[in-house]
Amino acid sequence: MNSLNSPNGEELAQLIAPEDLIVAEDGRRRYAGDKWFASNLPDAVVLPQDAQTVSRVLAYAHRRNIPVTARGAGYGYVGGCVPVQGGIVLSTERMNRILAIDKQDYVAVVEPGVITADLQSAADRQGLYYPPDPASRNDCSLGGNIATNAGGPRCLKYGVTRDYVLGLTVVLADGTVGRLGGRTHKNKTGFDLHRLFVGSEGLLGVIVEATLKLLPKPPFRACLSVGFGAMEPAVKAVRQILDLGFLPSALELADEFTLNAAAERTGSYLFAGCRSHLIVELDGQETSVRTEIATLETALSRLNPVFVRPGCGEEPCEAIWRVRREFSFALRDTGLTKLNQDIVVPRGRLEALFAFAAGLQRKYRIQLACFGHAGDGNIHVNLMVDRQDPEQRARCRQAVDELFRQVLQWGGSITGEHGIGLARLPWWESAAPPEVRRMHRSIKQALDRRSILNPGKFV
Amino acid sequence: MNSLNSPNGEELAQLIAPEDLIVAEDGRRRYAGDKWFASNLPDAVVLPQDAQTVSRVLAYAHRRNIPVTARGAGYGYVGGCVPVQGGIVLSTERMNRILAIDKQDYVAVVEPGVITADLQSAADRQGLYYPPDPASRNDCSLGGNIATNAGGPRCLKYGVTRDYVLGLTVVLADGTVGRLGGRTHKNKTGFDLHRLFVGSEGLLGVIVEATLKLLPKPPFRACLSVGFGAMEPAVKAVRQILDLGFLPSALELADEFTLNAAAERTGSYLFAGCRSHLIVELDGQETSVRTEIATLETALSRLNPVFVRPGCGEEPCEAIWRVRREFSFALRDTGLTKLNQDIVVPRGRLEALFAFAAGLQRKYRIQLACFGHAGDGNIHVNLMVDRQDPEQRARCRQAVDELFRQVLQWGGSITGEHGIGLARLPWWESAAPPEVRRMHRSIKQALDRRSILNPGKFV
Repeated sequence: MNSLNSPNGEELAQLIAPEDLIVAEDGRRRYAGDKWFASNLPDAVVLPQDAQTVSRVLAYAHRRNIPVTARGAGYGYVGGCVPVQGGIVLSTERMNRILAIDKQDYVAVVEPGVITADLQSAADRQGLYYPPDPASRNDCSLGGNIATNAGGPRCLKYGVTRDYVLGLTVVLADGTVGRLGGRTHKNKTGFDLHRLFVGSEGLLGVIVEATLKLLPKPPFRACLSVGFGAMEPAVKAVRQILDLGFLPSALELADEFTLNAAAERTGSYLFAGCRSHLIVELDGQETSVRTEIATLETALSRLNPVFVRPGCGEEPCEAIWRVRREFSFALRDTGLTKLNQDIVVPRGRLEALFAFAAGLQRKYRIQLACFGHAGDGNIHVNLMVDRQDPEQRARCRQAVDELFRQVLQWGGSITGEHGIGLARLPWWESAAPPEVRRMHRSIKQALDRRSILNPGKFV
Repeated sequence: MNSLNSPNGEELAQLIAPEDLIVAEDGRRRYAGDKWFASNLPDAVVLPQDAQTVSRVLAYAHRRNIPVTARGAGYGYVGGCVPVQGGIVLSTERMNRILAIDKQDYVAVVEPGVITADLQSAADRQGLYYPPDPASRNDCSLGGNIATNAGGPRCLKYGVTRDYVLGLTVVLADGTVGRLGGRTHKNKTGFDLHRLFVGSEGLLGVIVEATLKLLPKPPFRACLSVGFGAMEPAVKAVRQILDLGFLPSALELADEFTLNAAAERTGSYLFAGCRSHLIVELDGQETSVRTEIATLETALSRLNPVFVRPGCGEEPCEAIWRVRREFSFALRDTGLTKLNQDIVVPRGRLEALFAFAAGLQRKYRIQLACFGHAGDGNIHVNLMVDRQDPEQRARCRQAVDELFRQVLQWGGSITGEHGIGLARLPWWESAAPPEVRRMHRSIKQALDRRSILNPGKFV
């Protein structure tokens, strides 16, 4: 790492309109962190309104060796956009126009600051569909989604953000503006460079425009909400559904601790007697979906669930998902801090993972709430911790260590959708062997030779 | 480009078993090219049986500055594996074991030399599904598919090879072996490095193992074969199907010239009166697929087709596809050479593309046969040329120039699945702006600083 400098306010003021530059401390404070704990005050915040300004700011920072940390809406969970070495925070929040939604080409062209849900609604109004749906979709931005390769419950059938990125305009560290990829649904022109920027956590360049693939909107959806008296039949259900040749749009699983917290919060008896809960969602043509959901209802009934409730159509599905969305709030209501580890295991290890988590709970006397995208093996293992208690925090750290070690041993991954950021940084070395880290450094060096972009992170 | 050396047979013989090394000219000749026209004799051919040998050969070549061109089964269409600067051809054909098919994890682990159709069959026997299906799937290998990011008719619903690559073991130019990605269906650990190698045409490293995603096998499929009296209603049909919220597994379109050639070859009257032909394939649960194909049959009948024939189930579907597969043979039977340009246009430009192709046909007096993956906008525009006639070849070159210019102007791509190789090399500069080419060079330099891998291609 080079030694980096601080920006000069007067020089910056020549590059960007005064209303798009923040130097006052109280203003900068809002750009010091994301939804994770860490934060660090940047020296200046720029809020460019176009790609040219982004390019000018980066060219300046490159010349002067000043750190630049790009930032979307600040809804990350791992401190990825914390400007740990100060310098400039470059927020894309004012580049927030949907430039086009093309119903013929099935593409959207957006600036990075567009809120994910806004694109989804705009597409929906034209009978089109943008599937990636991170939980924070009402607040997070597409630029942030691309920088972190955001996921969500629909990935099983529909894939992650990367699978929808057809083209990107990026600004490199030295201010070079590059238009990568294109507007077509297939493209084999050269290296797949645009997708290298997807999930690169602001370390390789700043995204200033994206061309995204849209799908025909499935005309109908239906859900099953299924409560089981144990975790085992729920995992069995996941396997059976896939074995029957279904690829649901979602397969969401929650454990007992999560259900208890939800019951506490909502006062509902829905989950009485349940130790696991599964949501299955199918979408497609109405007649097909209705028949298929009935088939699955029959199949899952054989596993002796506590209850099976179908919800057919938009509103009944949303009612089922509302309960699911309460899970996070419910865990927050416990008064404990939720440390969300979005690990992924090979699908065959789901049952082993839940058993292992139960073991950690006993061993470290820490409550664990597990829920998430069972179809992908991407389970959010939430350690519920009293952060004021240093002894409990130490146990928590040990438990996460042991969890990650086991996950890696199973061939799993320490992060499925949140990224490395600062939160996973201590485990980066165990997750990536030396030669792979070396390759990361080579690529970083090739595109940002002075390492000014988001310094202090995993490369 | 550095000046590169020739390998020394005696040194090579110390790195690899004698039966895995070819130095005799008649042996080497078989490794001089692929399915395109260009060829160049390599100085030596190595056929390693394991990753360690690949690493040893590359470390040697790197030290001695010798070109190494990796090669799958040699079924590429653009001369991508032609060793234009001689040196060593490294064929992965003897690394052809399926190492695992895991029904719990829904993954396959394969060596690069496995024939694509062999993996598909092996997966199928376990109720699993590997969707990518390039036309040459009975001959091409997975390593080649990965190096070229191969596609096929099923991409519309199922995506391309890239979407199935979860992990790769690659050997870099200097012999470093790196295990990238992993075994999970989701992974956000660092940069998406393994997918950078997908489609990199042997310029960044040699793939020695791949972990591929498998899906639940859809239990049923059905097709519609539809002949129209013009191209316009066929394109309209494509749009209507998507507007109805269907995402078919295939939407294949063929034009009049193709149909005439097929009729000539097969002696069949199937296409009498037809000037375009569409195949629609749906897959999923049997009851759903049967209902949906009937819905589409009714919808498309309103467009006044010459005929609509449904095929429900494996054998009737295959019968429809057999006719489609004849198209390529039929064009070959014309006695002319088929120069396949696998261009892609934004989906809304399909009609304009067919009209433009008809215009080229008149202007340059060259017969054009267009057919392909209409759902993706990926139409193979085949120029039918007498290669013995230099004047016709010149006209052909002009026609391709004009075609590519128009495609790029529409925001399209000059190659959707075949790659740049040698065939598209003359158009690389018009397809990729200078700053994008510079980024390609930076990445290449970062991973292969002596440029020994597949030299003489697009970077």
